[in-house]
Amino acid sequence: MEGLLYGAAYYDEYMPYERMEEDLRLMKAAGMNTIRIAESTWSTWEPREGEFDFSKLHHMLREAKKAGIRVIVGTPTYAIPPWMVRVVPDILADTHTGRCLYGHRQNMDLLHPKYRYYCERMIRKLLEVTSTYDNVIGYQLDNETKPYDTCSSYAQEAFVQYLKEKFESLEEVNQEFGLSYWSNEVWDWKDFPDVRGSINGSLSAEYKRFLRKVVTDFHAWQRSIVEEYRRENQFITHNFDYEWRNYSHGMQPEVDQYEDGKNFTVIGADLYHPSEDELTGAEIAFGGSLMYSLKRENYLILETQAQGQFGWTPYPGQLLLCAYSHLAQGANSVMYWHWHSIHNAMESYWKGVLSHDLTPGRIYEEAACLGKELARIGESLVNLKKSYGVAILVSHESLVGLDEFPLDAMEEEHPLNYNDILRWIYDGFYDLNVECTFVDATLEKGEDLSDYALVVIPALYSVTEEMIGKLRKYVEGGGHLFSTFRSFMADDCLKIFHDPLPHGMTDVFGLTYDEFTKPSKEGIPKVSHYLELLRATTGSTIASYEHPFWKDYAMVVENHYGMGETTYLGAYVEEEVLHNLLRRVCEQAGISLPKLKPQV
Amino acid sequence: MEGLLYGAAYYDEYMPYERMEEDLRLMKAAGMNTIRIAESTWSTWEPREGEFDFSKLHHMLREAKKAGIRVIVGTPTYAIPPWMVRVVPDILADTHTGRCLYGHRQNMDLLHPKYRYYCERMIRKLLEVTSTYDNVIGYQLDNETKPYDTCSSYAQEAFVQYLKEKFESLEEVNQEFGLSYWSNEVWDWKDFPDVRGSINGSLSAEYKRFLRKVVTDFHAWQRSIVEEYRRENQFITHNFDYEWRNYSHGMQPEVDQYEDGKNFTVIGADLYHPSEDELTGAEIAFGGSLMYSLKRENYLILETQAQGQFGWTPYPGQLLLCAYSHLAQGANSVMYWHWHSIHNAMESYWKGVLSHDLTPGRIYEEAACLGKELARIGESLVNLKKSYGVAILVSHESLVGLDEFPLDAMEEEHPLNYNDILRWIYDGFYDLNVECTFVDATLEKGEDLSDYALVVIPALYSVTEEMIGKLRKYVEGGGHLFSTFRSFMADDCLKIFHDPLPHGMTDVFGLTYDEFTKPSKEGIPKVSHYLELLRATTGSTIASYEHPFWKDYAMVVENHYGMGETTYLGAYVEEEVLHNLLRRVCEQAGISLPKLKPQV
Amino acid sequence: MEGLLYGAAYYDEYMPYERMEEDLRLMKAAGMNTIRIAESTWSTWEPREGEFDFSKLHHMLREAKKAGIRVIVGTPTYAIPPWMVRVVPDILADTHTGRCLYGHRQNMDLLHPKYRYYCERMIRKLLEVTSTYDNVIGYQLDNETKPYDTCSSYAQEAFVQYLKEKFESLEEVNQEFGLSYWSNEVWDWKDFPDVRGSINGSLSAEYKRFLRKVVTDFHAWQRSIVEEYRRENQFITHNFDYEWRNYSHGMQPEVDQYEDGKNFTVIGADLYHPSEDELTGAEIAFGGSLMYSLKRENYLILETQAQGQFGWTPYPGQLLLCAYSHLAQGANSVMYWHWHSIHNAMESYWKGVLSHDLTPGRIYEEAACLGKELARIGESLVNLKKSYGVAILVSHESLVGLDEFPLDAMEEEHPLNYNDILRWIYDGFYDLNVECTFVDATLEKGEDLSDYALVVIPALYSVTEEMIGKLRKYVEGGGHLFSTFRSFMADDCLKIFHDPLPHGMTDVFGLTYDEFTKPSKEGIPKVSHYLELLRATTGSTIASYEHPFWKDYAMVVENHYGMGETTYLGAYVEEEVLHNLLRRVCEQAGISLPKLKPQV
Repeated sequence: MEGLLYGAAYYDEYMPYERMEEDLRLMKAAGMNTIRIAESTWSTWEPREGEFDFSKLHHMLREAKKAGIRVIVGTPTYAIPPWMVRVVPDILADTHTGRCLYGHRQNMDLLHPKYRYYCERMIRKLLEVTSTYDNVIGYQLDNETKPYDTCSSYAQEAFVQYLKEKFESLEEVNQEFGLSYWSNEVWDWKDFPDVRGSINGSLSAEYKRFLRKVVTDFHAWQRSIVEEYRRENQFITHNFDYEWRNYSHGMQPEVDQYEDGKNFTVIGADLYHPSEDELTGAEIAFGGSLMYSLKRENYLILETQAQGQFGWTPYPGQLLLCAYSHLAQGANSVMYWHWHSIHNAMESYWKGVLSHDLTPGRIYEEAACLGKELARIGESLVNLKKSYGVAILVSHESLVGLDEFPLDAMEEEHPLNYNDILRWIYDGFYDLNVECTFVDATLEKGEDLSDYALVVIPALYSVTEEMIGKLRKYVEGGGHLFSTFRSFMADDCLKIFHDPLPHGMTDVFGLTYDEFTKPSKEGIPKVSHYLELLRATTGSTIASYEHPFWKDYAMVVENHYGMGETTYLGAYVEEEVLHNLLRRVCEQAGISLPKLKPQV
Repeated sequence: MEGLLYGAAYYDEYMPYERMEEDLRLMKAAGMNTIRIAESTWSTWEPREGEFDFSKLHHMLREAKKAGIRVIVGTPTYAIPPWMVRVVPDILADTHTGRCLYGHRQNMDLLHPKYRYYCERMIRKLLEVTSTYDNVIGYQLDNETKPYDTCSSYAQEAFVQYLKEKFESLEEVNQEFGLSYWSNEVWDWKDFPDVRGSINGSLSAEYKRFLRKVVTDFHAWQRSIVEEYRRENQFITHNFDYEWRNYSHGMQPEVDQYEDGKNFTVIGADLYHPSEDELTGAEIAFGGSLMYSLKRENYLILETQAQGQFGWTPYPGQLLLCAYSHLAQGANSVMYWHWHSIHNAMESYWKGVLSHDLTPGRIYEEAACLGKELARIGESLVNLKKSYGVAILVSHESLVGLDEFPLDAMEEEHPLNYNDILRWIYDGFYDLNVECTFVDATLEKGEDLSDYALVVIPALYSVTEEMIGKLRKYVEGGGHLFSTFRSFMADDCLKIFHDPLPHGMTDVFGLTYDEFTKPSKEGIPKVSHYLELLRATTGSTIASYEHPFWKDYAMVVENHYGMGETTYLGAYVEEEVLHNLLRRVCEQAGISLPKLKPQV
Repeated sequence: MEGLLYGAAYYDEYMPYERMEEDLRLMKAAGMNTIRIAESTWSTWEPREGEFDFSKLHHMLREAKKAGIRVIVGTPTYAIPPWMVRVVPDILADTHTGRCLYGHRQNMDLLHPKYRYYCERMIRKLLEVTSTYDNVIGYQLDNETKPYDTCSSYAQEAFVQYLKEKFESLEEVNQEFGLSYWSNEVWDWKDFPDVRGSINGSLSAEYKRFLRKVVTDFHAWQRSIVEEYRRENQFITHNFDYEWRNYSHGMQPEVDQYEDGKNFTVIGADLYHPSEDELTGAEIAFGGSLMYSLKRENYLILETQAQGQFGWTPYPGQLLLCAYSHLAQGANSVMYWHWHSIHNAMESYWKGVLSHDLTPGRIYEEAACLGKELARIGESLVNLKKSYGVAILVSHESLVGLDEFPLDAMEEEHPLNYNDILRWIYDGFYDLNVECTFVDATLEKGEDLSDYALVVIPALYSVTEEMIGKLRKYVEGGGHLFSTFRSFMADDCLKIFHDPLPHGMTDVFGLTYDEFTKPSKEGIPKVSHYLELLRATTGSTIASYEHPFWKDYAMVVENHYGMGETTYLGAYVEEEVLHNLLRRVCEQAGISLPKLKPQV
C-alpha cells in the first residue's frame, strides 16, 4: 500500500445528472485520491438475465484514471436484481420469520446454487473489465456479508451434514446439546427437525456457528475466483462492520472476523458513531483496535461518516478530530460514506461529503482542509505500528452464550448483552487512557499471551479445556489475569459445567461460588443487573456487598497463583467502582497510567 | 337540503328485541328528524348467496315514514357476509401482513372482480327497494372506505398498468424512483417485483397514491350505479373520517378527500374527540373546517359521539357545546353514533344516546334539550356560509413523504408525523381564535390564493414546479406566505431536489440552507425534534438558536418579495414561541386577532 | 395418602453422568421421601416410531425402591418426540399465529387423532412397566395441560359440532352472539368462518370455553386408560398452574380447574412466587387456597421453587418459611422443582435443590433442615382441615369477559384484567389476616353459600339467572354480599343486559347506574382505572366521588335486603380505602379480624 487512502464511496449510478468530471475535480481539489465503487450495481450491469452492459463502469474507470484517482472495486453480490427473483423465487432467504421479499439488500440465500452460479458469472465478467485498468488498486468482496438468517432447505441440509462431520454419532449430539430436555432427542438423522423451532440454546448456538462459517466459506469462494484475475499489487479486502445500535457498538455477532479475516490481504471496516455532543472517541478507538487485532496489521477505514444520519451533523472541527482518531488506531485510510447525498430511497438522509445540492459546503471545506494536512504530513502517518500492554479476550461463543442465556433474563427491557459488558470494560480502560488490544479467546492461532502485562476476560462464558490450560499457564508464568463475572461457566456447546465454578480456575482465582442473583427490590449500593456470591478460598476479598444477607460474600477477589496474580470481579458495578478497580489492576500489572486527558 | 338534520344511526338488526315503534317515539320526543341505516346489513339481506330478504328494511322504512322520520340509506358493502368468503376465499385482502381473516369489516379486496359483482347486485336490489319510499332523503356510498392495504395480484397488476400509463418508459421509472439504489432497477415490466418488499420510499409512496385512487374509483363506480335509481332530490354522500389516534386527529392519509369528494353531492363526515376534561374544541374545529374546505360548501356530520367510548362520558352541558361547535363550522347536521348502545361485539362499550338499558337517561335528556332548541332556532343555523382570511395548504404527497422519510427517524418512539405538524400549526391559530381553512396543496382545482391575506405551509415536503409557480405569484402579488421547515424539499416522486433548498423559493424566502439536525444531548432552549441551519440572504433573521455551535444560523427569517412578505420557521418550537410568531405574522398580514377567549 | 410427601422432581435423563445412587442417598439424608419423574421422556422411551426402550425407567424405579423413595410417575404426553412431527407434520397445533414449529413443549393439537393414537400406545406401555413396582404411589396425567390455542380443522369442526349441540339453531347462534354486527350472521353451518378472524367477543369467548372443555375431555380420556392399570392405593393427579406473570399470579384462564379437577383423585399444583425482598406470602396463600377449594380437600404441591429463576435466590430461612406456608394452606406435600440444576437448554438457570456443581450447598442444607423438622412434626401437619368465613366467587366467564371487553381499554399499557381485580380483593383480605376460600361462581355443584358469613364478588361480569337466584336467596337468608363494580353486567354469552344494572340485583344492592367512566385528566382522589356513577335507591351512600361533576354519584352503597346486608363498591380504589372498607364489611358480617401481623 502506498500512502494513505483518502476519499469516498462514489455512486455514479445514483447521480441525478451527469457530473462525474465535476465530482472528480472537486475530489482532487479536496486532496482526495481514492474512490470506492460498484457494490450495488448488479441491476445496472446485468439488466436482464445474461445481458451485460459495463459501459458505465468503463466510463467511470477511464475518467478516474484521467483525474489520477485510484479505485477500489466491489463485487456487487450483496444486492440482487429483480429479474433474479422472478426466475428463481426461492433465491430469497427463508428465515426464522419466513421468506424475504424482494427490495431489501442482503436477504438472499448464500447457499442457493443458482445464486452462486449468477454470482460467479457476474464476478468473472466484472474482473475481466477491471483488470485492464491500472488505477484499480484493490477489490472488495461483497459488502458487510452476513448469513441473513438463512434457514432454507439448503441450509438445513448443510447444517445436518456439518453436524455429521463434527460429531461421532447422534448419541453424542443428544448428549452434548442435552436434547433429552423436553423430549427433543433425535435418533435418526432424517428426523432432525427444522432448527427454527428449537428451544435448545446449545443447538441454536451451534446453528449460529454454522452460519458464521457460511460467511467465511462464501468469502473464500469469492476470493478463489478473484485470484484468477487480480494483479499482484491489487489488494483484496472486505467491509467488516460491528454490532449495530444505530451506530457501531460492539463486535459483529454474525461473522467470525478472526477466521474470515484470513480471506483478505488487508482488513477493511465501516465504522459509524454518534457526533455533536455525543461524540466520545470510544467507538473509533474500540472499532479500530478490533480491526487492527484481526491480523495485527494496519487496516482500511472503507466507510465512515461525513455528515452521517439525522442528528449527527458534525460540529466545526469534529471531522478532523475523527480522521486523526482513525489514523491513531492504525488505519491506513479515511474513506467517507459517501461522496454525495442520495436523492431517493432508504438512505436519502444519510448525508455525504456533499449535501443534496451537490455543491461544496461547510463539510466539504473541512474535508478539503484535512486533505491539505494529509498531503503535508500523511506520509508519516501511514503504517503506524501499535503495541499494547493489555489484551482483552473476545469470544463469539460467549457472545452467543449470553444471547441464548441472558445474564438478567427477568429484566424485561434491555438485558445486558455480551457487547455491553465488553464495552463497559473497554470503555473503562479508555477513560483511563489505557490502550487495549483484542485477542480471539479461542487462542487457536498461536497467540502468545505472555506478550501482555495484563490479560482481561469480560464474561468469558464459554471456554474449552485448551483455553483454560493456556490461561493457567499465562498466570503461572507471571501474568496478571483479570476476569469479570459470568466467565468459565459453560463448555464449547454451552453446556454448563457440573463441577465448581469458575470451572477449572477455582485455584487460579482463589475462589468459588454456586449462587448468583440480581439486586432485589431494596437494591445493593453501586451494583446493578447481576452479582455472584463469591466465596474466597486462597484469595483475598477486596470488596464485599453492602447487603443484609449477602454481606458475607465477596464481590472482588485477588489471588496469587504461580508467578502471577489474578483479580476476579463478581458483579456489574458502577463506573466509578470499575475505574478504581482498573487503576488498581493496572498498577499491580505494572501498567503506568497516562496523565488525565487535558480538560477543555 | 331542507333544514338541519338531527338524529342518529339506527341499527334495528342489533336490537335485542322488537322496539322500533318505541324508539321512533323517543326520537320524535327528543326533536330528532333523521336516522341513518343499513351500512352493516349485507348478511341480513342476503343470508345465502343470491337469496335476498328485505322484509326488515321495508318494515324500517315504513315505520320511519309513519313516524315522520327521514332516512339516509347506506350501501352495505363495507362488511361482507360469511358465505362470500367460503365461495371466494381470496376475496379477503392480501396485505403487507398477509391474507386477512373473516370477521372484521373493511378487509376485502376492492379490486376483486367477484367482490364488484356481488356489490353491484346488492346495490341494485337495495335501490329497487328504497326507491319506493319518499322519506329516503339520501344515500351513503359504502362507509369510511379505505384501500385496506390490498396487495393482491389484482392490485399489483393494476399498479403496473397505472405506472405504464403514467410514465413513458421503465427507464423513466428507474430514474424517477431512483431504483438503481441497492440494485432495484427493473428492465422488463414482467420483472416488476411485489411492492410489499420495497425499501424505496418513492415507489412505496406511488403505491399509496395508487391506492388512494382505488378508493376514488370505487366510489365513482358505486355512484354510477346509484345514479340509475336515485331521485333528483336525494343526495349522495359518504362518511369521511380522519387519521385516528383513538379519536379524529388529522387528515385521513389513505383517501384523497379533495378528489374523492367530487363523487358526492354533499360531503359527510364522522368526527370523534375526547370529552370530559380533555374536550378542547380543536378537533371539532379542525375536522369541520377540513370538510367544509372539500367543496367550499356545508357538510353533514353523519357520526359524532353521544356518549362515545370508555372515558368520554360527557359532563353536563358538553353535548350541547359540541353540537353548536359543529354548526359553527358549517355542518348542516348533528347525527349521533348511535341511537342505542350495543349488547354484543366489538363496540359494545361505544355507547349511544341510550345506554344499554334502552331507557331515557341523562344523555337522552340533554339530547332532547338540544332538540327543543334546534326546533326553535335551527332554521337560522342551516347553510351558514364561512369566510376565512387564512388558508393552510394540505398535501397528501407531503404526508406520505414524512411517513417514508420521517422527520426525526432516530427518535425511536414517536417521530412527528405530518398531521402532528399540521395540528401544531392549526391548533396554534385556534388558540389565538383565528379561523383557518384548508386548500389542497396541489392547487390544481383553480383555487385563487389571492383570496387569502395569509397562506400557511406546514411541512410542504413535496412540491411540483406548478405549485411553486403559483406560490411565487401569490407573494409577488402582495400575499403573505408563512412556511415551516421541511418544505420545498422533494418533487412529486419524493426525489430530493439537487439544488439549493428551499427549492425554487430561496429568493422568495430570502434564505437557504443545506444542513439540518436535531437538538443534541445538551439540548437547545425551546426547540425539539428538528432544526434547519438557515442562512439568511436577502431576508432578516428574526430569531436564532441558543447553542454554542449553531448560534450563527437563523431559526426564523422574514423577507420582502415582490409586493408581498414571507416568514420561514426553521424549527419545531414550543407553543409559546409559536404563538408569538403567529401573532406577529397575523399582524403583518393584516389579520386582526379576536379578543381572548372569555375566562371561566 | 400416608404422611407428607417431601421431595423433588428428578430427571435422570438430564444428568450429565450416572449419579442416581448418589442423588438418592443425598435425598434420604435430607429427609426426602418422594420423587416425581418421567413427564418429559417420550423421546427416550420411544426413540423411533413404535420402538420402545424402558430400561432407564426400570433402573430408576428399582433404585428408588432400593433407597426407600416413593415415586410419582407422569405420562409423558406434553412433549412429543421429533419423529412424530416428521411422520405427521400437522400434529403440531395450528394456532391464531400459525402452525407451531417443533422444539417447544405443549404445542401439539390435542384433537389430532394420530396424537391420541400415539398417546394411548405410550401410556399403555408405560403403565405396563410401572404397575409392577409397589413404590409407585401415584400417576400424574400429562403436565400443565392447556389447549395450546389449537385452531386446526379438527378443532374448528369440533367447535361447530359443539355449537350444534348447545344451540337450537343458527338463528339462535346469530341472536345470542349478536352476529348481525358487521354482517357476521351465518345462515348455513358450512359457512361458519374460521374462528381466528372473529371480532365478536361473545363468539371468541365461546371458543375459549370450548377449548377449556378440550382439556377436561383430554384428561378424562387419559384417566380412562390409566384406570385399566392402576392399583387402588395409587392416586391420580395433575399439575395445575396459574396465570403466569413471571410467577403464579391468578387463576389459570385456560383450564376450568373446578370441572377438570373431577378427573383426579387428588389435586396437584405448581406454584412459584418472587423471593428475596419480594416474598410476600400472598402468592402461596392465594394459590393454595384456590387448590384447596377445588375439591375442598387437601392438595399436593407438586412443584415449587428451591432456588427458582434468576433473582429469586432465597435468603436464609425463606425456604422453611415457604414450606410451612404451603402446609398452612392445606398442602400435603412440598415437592421442589427440581432436584438438580440443568446444564443445557431453556431452564438451565431455573435452579434446583442442587446447583450446577451437583454438590450439597446452602440450599440443600436448608432443605435438609426442613426434612429433619418434618420427620419430627410432619405427622401432625398432614391432612389439616380448613374452614373459612369468607368465600370469594370466581368465574371463568367473567375472566374471559374482561379479556374480551377490557375494563379500561383506552389505557394503552396494562388494562386491569380479572386476576388483577381478584388479587386486589384477595390480597386486601390477606393484608387484614382474613382467610378466604374460593367458590366456583357457576354454583352448579351444590355449594351452600349459607356456610359463609360473607360472600365476595370481584367483577362478576357474566352471570346466569340461576346464579342470581342463588345470590338473592343467600342475602334474603341473612348473608352479607360484597360486590365490586363490573358485576352482573352480561349474560353467559357475554351479551350485556338490556335492563337496569346491576342486572337482577338493583333491589338487593339498593342502587342502579347506567354510566361509568375513568378518572379524566384532572383525576379523582383515591380512584383509578374505572368508576361507576351509582345512584342509591333504597341503599345508603357510604362514599361519593370527590369530583366537580360526579360528586352527586355514589361510590359505595350499603343496603339491607331480606335478612341480609349488601355492600357495593363502584370504583377501583387505593389500598387504604379498600382496607377500610373491608374492615367495615367484616365487622358487619361478624368476622373478627385477627391482630395485626407482628412487626419486624
